[in-house]
Amino acid sequence: MPKKFSEAEKNRIQQKLLESGRSLVSRYGFKKTSVDELTKGAGIAAGTFYGFYQSKEELFFELVEVEENRIRTTLLEHAANRPVDKESFKLFLLESFQLMSNNPIIQQILLTESFEAILRKLPPERLERNYNEDQDILLPFIQKWQTAGVLTKKSSPELIVSMIRSLFLLSLHKREIGEAVYDDTLKLLITTMANGLFARD
Amino acid sequence: MPKKFSEAEKNRIQQKLLESGRSLVSRYGFKKTSVDELTKGAGIAAGTFYGFYQSKEELFFELVEVEENRIRTTLLEHAANRPVDKESFKLFLLESFQLMSNNPIIQQILLTESFEAILRKLPPERLERNYNEDQDILLPFIQKWQTAGVLTKKSSPELIVSMIRSLFLLSLHKREIGEAVYDDTLKLLITTMANGLFARD
Repeated sequence: MPKKFSEAEKNRIQQKLLESGRSLVSRYGFKKTSVDELTKGAGIAAGTFYGFYQSKEELFFELVEVEENRIRTTLLEHAANRPVDKESFKLFLLESFQLMSNNPIIQQILLTESFEAILRKLPPERLERNYNEDQDILLPFIQKWQTAGVLTKKSSPELIVSMIRSLFLLSLHKREIGEAVYDDTLKLLITTMANGLFARD
Repeated sequence: MPKKFSEAEKNRIQQKLLESGRSLVSRYGFKKTSVDELTKGAGIAAGTFYGFYQSKEELFFELVEVEENRIRTTLLEHAANRPVDKESFKLFLLESFQLMSNNPIIQQILLTESFEAILRKLPPERLERNYNEDQDILLPFIQKWQTAGVLTKKSSPELIVSMIRSLFLLSLHKREIGEAVYDDTLKLLITTMANGLFARD
């Protein structure tokens, strides 16, 4: 970093960059937003950017993660207020997908032609961190449904989380799945998966 | 087309282009193979290419489809020799995924960084044709398992095919799913899906 910032300043700048990114992406999309505009929007020098992110892709991925965190919190709150039963598990999965599909920031970034490029430009440890966050937060939930006898104990909870996580990648392929059948296909996939995970022993 | 070809000549040229494509892609990969090399390999003039395909992407997609056809034939032959029961359905799904994942041409093309670009350069009717081929061939099979009472009749066979089809798109995301857990995650997804489709009424 060209200049020494205190921890408090760093936090403030990072928040400003994220806000600037959120507003620019919502208005102009991902491709048309440059590092120059991001730093201008945040009121910092262009060179300062790289003290915080390796690339604009990394900042955009962080925007997705902020939304993901918000969605996780909502999901867990809702689930905490429901009984630990089959119906709640199905609702949990369907709601996850709905919240992801209807979030404007996530959709703006996911549906860009270059989401693959975003992912490829991320350092591997960034993807791993995302993976671990999903595991940390979802694992206790899956285990609770397993302990209550709602979900089968034959599959490891880690793999169940990994499976749920992988389904979200399908939202990148609306076109290949077929626009006309996309919603119904995903709904069937989610309810079939829930159905297949219920304990029958 | 700059020159008039008879139907027989057209077929012969198309076969040569596909062979040339298969051999070049296996050796050098998708990105490094140009239209020039494709036509040189097939022994035709460069301009002739566009009488057959709109882009090299379209030819590569056709290579994938040739392999898909081969795989479908193998799958259906195997299934025809097995009893119409739960075990066979699971085997059918697992084998589909294995054959797709182990096919060198499909993997060479799917795993290229630009598979998204291939898909995006295809005319929409090309994707639709692929969709319809999957439906035409798989539909009778799914219906057979439904009629035999193995699979639930609550879901439409068309949507079940669409769901199975969409799972193959996950093979594009080995990195995001996580190399270390990819195989186990997909295996769990497939068996869970089979499990969720079994009739219980």
